[in-house]
Amino acid sequence: MKIYVIGTGPGEASQLTGKALKALNDSDLIVGYQVYIDLIKHLVPDKETFSTPMKGEVERCKYAVETASTGKKVAVISSGDAGIYGMAGLIYEVLEAYGNLEIQVEIIPGITAAASAAAVLGAPLTNDFAVISLSDLLTRWEDIEIRLRLAARAGFAICIYNPSSRRRGDYLRKACEIIMSEISSSTPCGYVKNIGREGQESKILTLEELAAEQVDMFTTVIIGNSNTRVINNRLVTSRGYRV
Amino acid sequence: MKIYVIGTGPGEASQLTGKALKALNDSDLIVGYQVYIDLIKHLVPDKETFSTPMKGEVERCKYAVETASTGKKVAVISSGDAGIYGMAGLIYEVLEAYGNLEIQVEIIPGITAAASAAAVLGAPLTNDFAVISLSDLLTRWEDIEIRLRLAARAGFAICIYNPSSRRRGDYLRKACEIIMSEISSSTPCGYVKNIGREGQESKILTLEELAAEQVDMFTTVIIGNSNTRVINNRLVTSRGYRV
Repeated sequence: MKIYVIGTGPGEASQLTGKALKALNDSDLIVGYQVYIDLIKHLVPDKETFSTPMKGEVERCKYAVETASTGKKVAVISSGDAGIYGMAGLIYEVLEAYGNLEIQVEIIPGITAAASAAAVLGAPLTNDFAVISLSDLLTRWEDIEIRLRLAARAGFAICIYNPSSRRRGDYLRKACEIIMSEISSSTPCGYVKNIGREGQESKILTLEELAAEQVDMFTTVIIGNSNTRVINNRLVTSRGYRV
Repeated sequence: MKIYVIGTGPGEASQLTGKALKALNDSDLIVGYQVYIDLIKHLVPDKETFSTPMKGEVERCKYAVETASTGKKVAVISSGDAGIYGMAGLIYEVLEAYGNLEIQVEIIPGITAAASAAAVLGAPLTNDFAVISLSDLLTRWEDIEIRLRLAARAGFAICIYNPSSRRRGDYLRKACEIIMSEISSSTPCGYVKNIGREGQESKILTLEELAAEQVDMFTTVIIGNSNTRVINNRLVTSRGYRV
């Protein structure tokens, strides 16, 4: 009785760790959101899979726990890292609800979007940073606003996950306006769409320009701080070394 | 003329990505801190290496740029992720100082300690979080204090890098005291020492207990928020799903 919770990284198979690949191979069933299963399915073509639509996370984790209870090994996959907005926490909560704590859980980390987006843009997260999701499905928008405001005030670089959705088309603009009330509107920023996948695109721009930009839900945004500069078209936050 | 800046993850070879391994193989020279070179050297035993002691980061990056200028391919390695307190930013700054912007730079992300420590402890970073280094070599301690205080006030889980050194034996206690002035001293926390390496150890404890704990420089600390609980001896931050 075992559940692996596996972070599969940004998308391309080469950014999976050896440990993640081994765990996928060791599993009888792979559970996840279909888009992310499709990205890794060719690596383990013979495995049984189970997916639910978006927002089906609880159902997916319950199915994983029920299947693991029958003695099978189950891989629950998240894109990026399994523990950063991924399924790791929910698996523990579902196990608790089922009162079934004998199933062994192993969390296998992956490259989270903060790291993969930063690598595409340059090096904007070389010093202290905050990671904030703009999705208000599970977190109150008022709390998200407070985090944006205090993170900017404290001088963190900020990495934004889930910047947009059909219902939340203006959230990135609202977020940028809050941040601009704390730091300069000329602060260098950047974003990456479809990291490590077909159609990868990135752009470097000012905070003010970012506020006017339309991005989609497959985009990761990074907002610099007062030590962030553009060097040769790359976004770089100085840590303070004397070069 | 190419420089790869490679994040080698927590330590064990299985947590390297395929892309990182391929870049190591493609390089003529591997540059890094000796401890981290030793962890990956067996994967590419025939490669030339160059290391300097701790605090030799600028010298290392200059050597990498000078060697790449002669036409060689150079891998600069960082443990964890190359862009999170890693060498990616410094490489761009050194290239700028040399006025040599023709060298191609490719940043290859790795599993950062926030993700690998979280995976060992459970799932404490499932929602918004901040990453803060307690090293005041390059950042003023006053700025670090502000970040600790505002991150706790905003309800971020907090991942602490570089919690201690010989000279900074009491910094983790000071950090915990600042955070305890904002959130409950019974907040669940945890730390992991030597993640993914020989001698890995982890512990889950309250914020108040953490303040009295002695940890070393190879330790990563995670401080929960008001949604963090201990489930079956694992540190779990609820994202808010209805289970």
